[in-house]
Amino acid sequence: MAEPLKIALAGLGTVGVGVIRVIETNAQLIARRAGRPIRITAVSARDRSRDRGVDLSCYSWEDDMTAMASRDDVDVLVELVGGSDGPALVLARNAIAHGKALVTANKAMIAHHGLELAEAAEGVGVALKFEAAVAGGIPVIKGLREGAAANAIERVYGILNGTCNYILSTMEDTGRAFGEVLAEAQAKGFAEADPTFDIEGIDAAHKLAITAAISFGARVDFDSVDTVGISRIIAADIAQARTLGYVIRLIGMAEIDVSDGTARLFQRVHPQLVPIDHPLAHVDGPTNAVVAEGNFSGRLLFQGAGAGEGPTASAVVADIIDIARSEAGAPFSVPVAELETMPPAPSGHRLGRSYIRFIVADRPGVLAEIAAAMRDAGVSIESLIQKGEEEHGDNVMVALVTHEGPESAVAEALRLLEGSPSLAGQPLVMHILEE
Amino acid sequence: MAEPLKIALAGLGTVGVGVIRVIETNAQLIARRAGRPIRITAVSARDRSRDRGVDLSCYSWEDDMTAMASRDDVDVLVELVGGSDGPALVLARNAIAHGKALVTANKAMIAHHGLELAEAAEGVGVALKFEAAVAGGIPVIKGLREGAAANAIERVYGILNGTCNYILSTMEDTGRAFGEVLAEAQAKGFAEADPTFDIEGIDAAHKLAITAAISFGARVDFDSVDTVGISRIIAADIAQARTLGYVIRLIGMAEIDVSDGTARLFQRVHPQLVPIDHPLAHVDGPTNAVVAEGNFSGRLLFQGAGAGEGPTASAVVADIIDIARSEAGAPFSVPVAELETMPPAPSGHRLGRSYIRFIVADRPGVLAEIAAAMRDAGVSIESLIQKGEEEHGDNVMVALVTHEGPESAVAEALRLLEGSPSLAGQPLVMHILEE
Repeated sequence: MAEPLKIALAGLGTVGVGVIRVIETNAQLIARRAGRPIRITAVSARDRSRDRGVDLSCYSWEDDMTAMASRDDVDVLVELVGGSDGPALVLARNAIAHGKALVTANKAMIAHHGLELAEAAEGVGVALKFEAAVAGGIPVIKGLREGAAANAIERVYGILNGTCNYILSTMEDTGRAFGEVLAEAQAKGFAEADPTFDIEGIDAAHKLAITAAISFGARVDFDSVDTVGISRIIAADIAQARTLGYVIRLIGMAEIDVSDGTARLFQRVHPQLVPIDHPLAHVDGPTNAVVAEGNFSGRLLFQGAGAGEGPTASAVVADIIDIARSEAGAPFSVPVAELETMPPAPSGHRLGRSYIRFIVADRPGVLAEIAAAMRDAGVSIESLIQKGEEEHGDNVMVALVTHEGPESAVAEALRLLEGSPSLAGQPLVMHILEE
Repeated sequence: MAEPLKIALAGLGTVGVGVIRVIETNAQLIARRAGRPIRITAVSARDRSRDRGVDLSCYSWEDDMTAMASRDDVDVLVELVGGSDGPALVLARNAIAHGKALVTANKAMIAHHGLELAEAAEGVGVALKFEAAVAGGIPVIKGLREGAAANAIERVYGILNGTCNYILSTMEDTGRAFGEVLAEAQAKGFAEADPTFDIEGIDAAHKLAITAAISFGARVDFDSVDTVGISRIIAADIAQARTLGYVIRLIGMAEIDVSDGTARLFQRVHPQLVPIDHPLAHVDGPTNAVVAEGNFSGRLLFQGAGAGEGPTASAVVADIIDIARSEAGAPFSVPVAELETMPPAPSGHRLGRSYIRFIVADRPGVLAEIAAAMRDAGVSIESLIQKGEEEHGDNVMVALVTHEGPESAVAEALRLLEGSPSLAGQPLVMHILEE
């Protein structure tokens, strides 16, 4: 058998420990499939003394993480430190500069600095792989980059954050409030102590920006992802959606918009109403799922665990096996120099149906005021429901679903209502996912 | 840009024409992703004069298909002739012998001769790829071979035949009889004039045998697939299953059985009852879906179009792009010499729940006879229903669901009832898919 592929592991949190477990447990079959053994030579983390439940004594310990990038006995550096900048980025740059292949699960770093790193890796001729950065254990990057490589991707969308999906599907099953379910998710380890990145959609936006770049051959543009989280969704929204035949999911979606003659990149992470007969409506708990629509393949769906030790480590080690097999290629499917710079697409002229929910004062005339604003903005109402709910105090909830029309009209209607003393707080708009 | 990859197309049926369309329509993006253009140099089919709706004038026509294998201007031979033996096999052997890479969508040939062809390809050092042979446009082979490469696969199962799934889900939606729906499927082009391969499960068994070999590192063993088709399912079975909370799907399933100390390969294609909250229960129409359960990844689901010009051609061209990128590796994930020879696993000691349906004479004592046979064989009944149905004439239907128990006990109960004058025809047994 050929020489072992020697890897160094930076970061020994959940995923790092998972990678050690995968490589130790499945060593034999991995060697058979990779054509050579995968050997961990060095490991590094902040705290050497912590008990991680795995025996590290057979691996060389580096106190100085950066030193791993220049070790002669390392072919592949596996970066599992996390964070878009700081030590992770320094290490990644160093590893590539020293001619090491780089494998990472770090979506924030790839969303922010992936192009720079890919360009460096292409220059040096080493691999840069990040399957675990999108949708945990599901081989979505591979599915898009290679499996669907013959297709122009027309749209890519999916459930990219397990924490949000756990919270939304639990709210759906139990009727409980967002805050309560979030607290439970934190207690169970499905949500971080500071859950902002997850619940405000930023984590999903990182993954979407990476996915969109690979799908469309466009330069990564995280800053242009229109991102709205799930923290403003109330139990009544979920109940109302269900009555109408929908579930609510945080959907990341990207497509190319050529409506003004220029190819523009549309990227959005929003809670959306998903028809209950759509495959994504059955994705419950911390599961992720990605749909890619190719011009020949039609709709492809990839589904599985979006996070967790085993699944994420599985994706990291799949990347390592690809490198052992000398299967690398351009990190973003085409060389960075050939990626197109696509300006962001505005959403105003997009056509669709929307759910709009207001909390309003319970007095005469409020409904008329809302209806008038819709009319003046040219929004046609398909159905409207007004409901008193304990949780709203003296206020009531008004929810409506529009007929298909431009999203700009909905935005205009809300502008007309801005500052109205009838409204208690900001209305919530969720678009309906079209088949 | 690098030299074009030159391909020859043998067979210009639906998929062959699809491959031409994909390569022509998406030429630019394919070249970018592949790192070099894909160029069709020669084509061949039985009938030169037939109008196929694509312009073939720019490709060199070969009347003698086999001659394509030795052309100097061919790097990859794409075999889309079909049939497990005959011209397809001759061509495949010739192409590899002449040092050409081989891409095929031919599941029958790979199920029967895949090991021989893979060994030859490994010997010569050329690629042999067959993504399109399993589940049409879905990158399942890639997902298992590479995406899940870090995992020991514990079980792989799915919906592998679009014709059967179309028939079953249409029977479900309309309440119509098997024969009527089959005739409609034939009229719509979803079923062949001779539908035997599809409806008797042989096509699914071909795909399962290939999938199992890759999942478990075992030698392909098509002959040991326990195969039962869908032609004996009646509308009342589907209605009854629905009442109990299930849908009926033709499921191909494979796993390793080590219950007697030897690793044995269990492979079965049977109609099964699928709980309505299982992701496969929502797979309707001619869609395919494959679930792989890895020891670290957990459950991965791949879903999409299982057949058709565009999807199948998309998979064929994905293989070609992999070859253009020099990403090949062992066709069955590990070299043929390292694949294990696994004896088939018996099904008798398997535990599970089963649905058993009888058509019986409508007279006293029949139910007692069935119940006694179950008792004598040690089968515990969870629920039982007896129904008069017009379609059964003087007979009635008795359907029961067992508690969990060995499948051998169910078989034994049916043996006890064999030849009973109370039974009109063979009982139908369908196992229940366990989560």
